[in-house]
Formats: sequence, structure tokens, C-alpha cells
Amino acid sequence: MFEQYFSNRIKKTPSSFIRDILKVIQKPEIISFAGGLPNPISFPQEELKISMNRIADKYKDKLYQYSTTLGLDSLRDYIVNRYKKLWNMDIDISNVMITTGSQQAIDLIGKVFVNEGDKVLVEKPSYLGILQTFCLYCAQFIPVSLDKDGLNIEELKNTISMHKPKLAYVIPNFQNPTGLTYSKNNRQEVFEVIKNEDIILIQDDPYGELRFTEDERLPYIGMNATEKNIYLGSFSKIITPGMRLGYIIASSEIIRMLETAKQASDLHSNIFSQYLISDYLENNNLDEHIKKIRNLYKNQAQTMVNAMKEAFPEDVKFTVPQGGMFSWVTIQEGKSVLKLFDKAIAKKVAFVPGHPFYVNPIPDKVNTLRLNYTNADANTIKTGIERLAEAMLEV
Amino acid sequence: MFEQYFSNRIKKTPSSFIRDILKVIQKPEIISFAGGLPNPISFPQEELKISMNRIADKYKDKLYQYSTTLGLDSLRDYIVNRYKKLWNMDIDISNVMITTGSQQAIDLIGKVFVNEGDKVLVEKPSYLGILQTFCLYCAQFIPVSLDKDGLNIEELKNTISMHKPKLAYVIPNFQNPTGLTYSKNNRQEVFEVIKNEDIILIQDDPYGELRFTEDERLPYIGMNATEKNIYLGSFSKIITPGMRLGYIIASSEIIRMLETAKQASDLHSNIFSQYLISDYLENNNLDEHIKKIRNLYKNQAQTMVNAMKEAFPEDVKFTVPQGGMFSWVTIQEGKSVLKLFDKAIAKKVAFVPGHPFYVNPIPDKVNTLRLNYTNADANTIKTGIERLAEAMLEV
Repeated sequence: MFEQYFSNRIKKTPSSFIRDILKVIQKPEIISFAGGLPNPISFPQEELKISMNRIADKYKDKLYQYSTTLGLDSLRDYIVNRYKKLWNMDIDISNVMITTGSQQAIDLIGKVFVNEGDKVLVEKPSYLGILQTFCLYCAQFIPVSLDKDGLNIEELKNTISMHKPKLAYVIPNFQNPTGLTYSKNNRQEVFEVIKNEDIILIQDDPYGELRFTEDERLPYIGMNATEKNIYLGSFSKIITPGMRLGYIIASSEIIRMLETAKQASDLHSNIFSQYLISDYLENNNLDEHIKKIRNLYKNQAQTMVNAMKEAFPEDVKFTVPQGGMFSWVTIQEGKSVLKLFDKAIAKKVAFVPGHPFYVNPIPDKVNTLRLNYTNADANTIKTGIERLAEAMLEV
Repeated sequence: MFEQYFSNRIKKTPSSFIRDILKVIQKPEIISFAGGLPNPISFPQEELKISMNRIADKYKDKLYQYSTTLGLDSLRDYIVNRYKKLWNMDIDISNVMITTGSQQAIDLIGKVFVNEGDKVLVEKPSYLGILQTFCLYCAQFIPVSLDKDGLNIEELKNTISMHKPKLAYVIPNFQNPTGLTYSKNNRQEVFEVIKNEDIILIQDDPYGELRFTEDERLPYIGMNATEKNIYLGSFSKIITPGMRLGYIIASSEIIRMLETAKQASDLHSNIFSQYLISDYLENNNLDEHIKKIRNLYKNQAQTMVNAMKEAFPEDVKFTVPQGGMFSWVTIQEGKSVLKLFDKAIAKKVAFVPGHPFYVNPIPDKVNTLRLNYTNADANTIKTGIERLAEAMLEV
């Protein structure tokens, strides 16, 4: 009965496909690779309990009062120092704002930059959260294909010269949904293409700390080379997602506009949680903690990759992640992944069909799917992949 | 340098006047009635510390994991039961969504309902948060004057028949900024005017629990009489604002749309805090706790009202609040409250000039201001009001 009242933007916006799927597959007998949940091992529960008691005694009513929109200074300082140490990034506290998770960062950027019809370059496939949120600001998406080593450079050049997008949104490390990582060379090429264009480049990096190798970290695209870079980070995959704490690093002029947008969105992020995470970081070794998560995910990823090599038909392809939480599977062209989904559910294994990661997908033509490996043990992973392989034979 | 990139909506949106003022008046020698902070007595710190340790042991990793967009069931159940008990409201859990403070509730309603140019009826003066947030969705505001007993009914009738607004946003209890309360009779009259109109009525009620008298609570406008009612509530003024937890009560069809908007905004609200507040509510007597806050605020309000009666020139008017956190002062017509602000700061007392609470105010014509009394003791209130009275003589 409310159809007439709802805004055009919300009527165009799909509800989250994944959250809808998750509701269907809650049955305990189903092995689910559909989620994107960090393993509980990544939550330092004992240390957080010590921290919450310490801050309760130390900061008292400050933990419970209204606070500043930009976020807790000590937490912003920590971020400044970490990015200086890791990347030699030339930033100070005026370049950092705390957000209610990275999802809010995306929403605020939409509020601050996107006029109806503005063109936004995204990866193909892309994170569904950006597609859903920017849809609310009536963005026009311009997808560029992802190859094994990163963005397809020819397509990037052509797309930019044809469409002149205002924003570009990429996840260079262990991308969601594909698990792909841009090579050092690809990052350099991408930078060469965009450096003289009028494009704000948003680099979302929720998984960057979850590398499986001890190699040097790969640099961001065009780091420090341009004021038009916006970096998104998050504590969700390395400490806790339940606390909803992420952050934006950008020029202070952009941060000031984002601050106004955040005032209008939720005044400020939960201040108790900001004190808690700040105290945890001050009193614990984050890198040691991250090492535990990386080792676990590395083993789980390896198990899944080995199981897929063994069980999947030869013409089914999948990505071999260098980090993060996902692998991306491409079944035979012409086969429908929605049909596979039904067969898989019948065999008690679930995944996310590729659809929500594309701009305007043609339902029957999609032959890709996302698998998550961070929340299942080795035996469960093997059994689940075997079931999925059996389902593939029936499509 | 980013002017060309910023969206039209953000360029039109003022940053929060109050937050900008607060930055100016942080000096310790200034007595500030400018804030809107609850008194720390309203934070049950000891009980919350007990609760956080209890939930850490009881719910373990659930406290730190991703969670559902609509919010924690036990907290939504609590809200259902409280509104059933207090108001005999005919609702169930499908009518309730947890939000990241009431400010987010306003943002989500803007996302879901407001097309560019849509007309929104607001009180004159109104809560600045709605003016700022709905400005981002390019709403057209239609103000209706607030009288001593509530909305001016003649103006309401004329305004509605002339403009046919899609939404109306009101704060019937201890309104921000005026401290005014709609009388029972006014509520009934407002309902008679709007009941046959195509208007979604949003009743924001952050202060409703903070009544100074033991009388019967005043009913909402047209409660249960229409599906077009949306109620906003918050734990900010009765437990803690730092945790950023509010809620929306609405028809389940509206809640479903708000759920999509919330997915795109922050996925879900901080789940640790939801467990914490839920556990606190389960194990403590909220009404006893609220009684303490009400008694304190009642005394503070009385002190301020008495001091104003004594010290202010006779032709300066002010509201006598029946609850909540604010009084609203009207100085002589023709005098500028901005000039008064400068004189007051020189005398080391601060307030919020009326400007941010109006739609398109003419700066020199505004002769109103907001005073907050919840965060100062009796002597400070008396001294501050005396200083303000002296400043009034100089304008």
C-alpha cells in the first residue's frame, strides 16, 4: 500500500542478494560457502574483555557520552602511524575519519560525490555493496573486466576515454568476489592510465592484511602521487566486524565534506567501541594476531583449491587466492549457475551465484559463483567441494 | 580543488551549526548552555560493566561477528513489549528495526521516502538534524508554527491544503529546540486534520521518558489509527548516546524498505552494544533508573526557569519545559540574537542561536535561542543565566 510513497531510488535498489540467500540456507545440514564471515579465531576475545574492563575504569562516562564526528583521536593517530610505517604515506590526523564500518564509508562517499547519472567505474565483477549503495545515489556504473593480474588495461583505456567517469572504485587486494589481486605491474599500468584524468580513485582494502605469503606488500595504485586518492580500511577482518569500525583516508578537504555527510548519517560512530579497539591496539601486538588469521585462512584456501583441482570438471575454472576470503568459480559457458544453485542446495552445499556482483546481469547467462572458505574446517571444505562437483555434473 | 567533484546535495547542506559552535566554546571558563548532552548520571556505568562481563562469557564470539540488519531479536522484543505495555500498541517484532541512533533513522527515512523536491512538513522551529539530513535528499521543507500547546492548527490546515506534503516530522514531547509539548487536545486536533490526508507522519520521541511529572503519559498522535505512522525512539537519553542505538517502529512493509536502505548504509548496527543494552534491560529496572534522571533534570529545569524569571528583562519570553532537556528563549523583536551571542561569549556564557532550527532563516531577524540545562549544577545555571541577562541589556 505504500508504493506511491517510496522514493524512486529505493524502488530501483535491490535488497542484498546475499542476505536473502543466507536466510534460505540457514539449515544446519547445508554446508555453506555463501557467507563472507571472518572466522571467530580472528576475534581476540580474551584481550578485548581485558580492554573493556580497563577502559571502563579509565575513561568512565566518556565511554557513554556523545562524541566527535571524525572519531576518537587516539584511534585516528594509530591509523596515521600504521599507514606511515607500512606505506610511508604522507598523512596526518586531518586525513582520517572513523566510519561505522566500510559500508558507511561507501555510503558517505556516495552522498558527497554522486549526482544522479554520474559515472562510476567499477570492476567486473564488483563488490555488491558498492553496487547497492551507489544505486541509491542513482550512479551510472561503468564496469571494466578483471583479468588474472588486475584490471584489463585496454578496456580501462577505452572505457575512460569513452565515458570519462567521475569516480573509480577498486579492491586491488584479494578482491571480493573474485579473490584476485592486482599485480605490481598492473597497478603501475592502471596508474599510468588514470593519472592525468579527472577521476577520484577509491581503493577499498578490507582484506589487505590477510596475505598468505611473507612477500613484500604490494603498493596502492599511485600512492601519494595524487590528492584524488581515497583509501578505505576496516577493523572488521582483523579484529571484529560486529563493532562496525572502518575508516577513510583522504585529502583533508574531502574529509571535511565527509564529516558533514556523517553528521547527517549517524552523528558519530559508537564511541565505546572506538575506545575499546584503541586500547586493544595499544596493549597488544596486532601483527602477531593477524599472523594467526593468515595461517588459518591460508590452510583453508589451500584445502579448497586442492579439493577443486581434484573434484571439479577440467573445464571449470577457479581463482587461486593469494590472500583474503574468497575464490571465484567459472563454470562452462552456456550453463546457468542458478540451475547449479538448485542442484547444489539439493546436495546440501551452498554458494553465492555471481549475479549480485554484476551491473544488470542477464540471469540465465551468468556462469560464475563465489566461494568463501574462512568459516569451515578442512573436512567440511572437502565434503562441500565434492558435493558441488557432483552438482556440476547434473547441470 | 575538489569543488567540481562534490555532489549538488552536499554543496547545499550546511555542516552542523551546533557542532561548529561547540568547537568555538570549548574554553573551560565559558558556561555553556549550548550543548545537548545528557548528564552522565543517566549512564548506568556500574550496571553496564557487569553486563559487558556477563555477555562476554555468555555470548562469546557472537558479540564480535557480523549480524542481522534488522537488529538483535531480544532487543526488538523488549521494544515491542514496552510499547505494548505503555501504549497498548498493536505491533510485533516485524514492526521494529534497530538503528545506529535516531539520526540514522532519519537518514534511512530520507533514503526510502524523499524524492528531490518532495514536500516535508516540519515544525517551526524544528530539530536541525532533520533539516540537515533531508536537505541531502533535496526535500522541500514546509514549516508550521509551534504554539504553546503544539502545532498551530489553522496554519496546519492551510499548509496541508496548499502544499499537500508527503511526509510530516514532529517531536510532540519536550520538543528540540523549544522544550514545548503538544497538549492532549492539540494532538487530537492534529490527528483530525491529517487523518484523511496522504501523509506519512513521523513522530520522533527521544525525550518522551523524561517527563518531570507523574501524570499520565500523553498519547502519540493517532496511535494505532493509521498504518502511515512511523515512531522513532532511542536509548541515547535514558541509557547512553555513545552506543548509538535507536529504533524505528512502522508497518512491516515500510520496515522491509528501511532494511534495504540500512544494508546499504552500515549493514547493521554494532551488535556488541545491542547485546549489552539488551542484557542491561533484562537485569535492571529501567523505570527506576529513569526516575533518577527525571528528578535531576526537573530540578535543573526549575532552577533555570526561576533564574530566568528573576534575571531576564520582562519582555524576554521563554518556555517552561514539562520534561526533556531544553528551554527556548525569545528576545525582543528587532534585536539580533547573533549580536547577543557575541556579547554573551564576552561575558563567558554560551547558547545556540535559533538559526539552525529554521528553514532559510534571515540571519539578522532571528531573535530566538536554545538553552540546555541538563549538564550544569544549580550554581552554574544561576551564574550563567545572570551573565546572559547582563548581556541582554547590552544588545
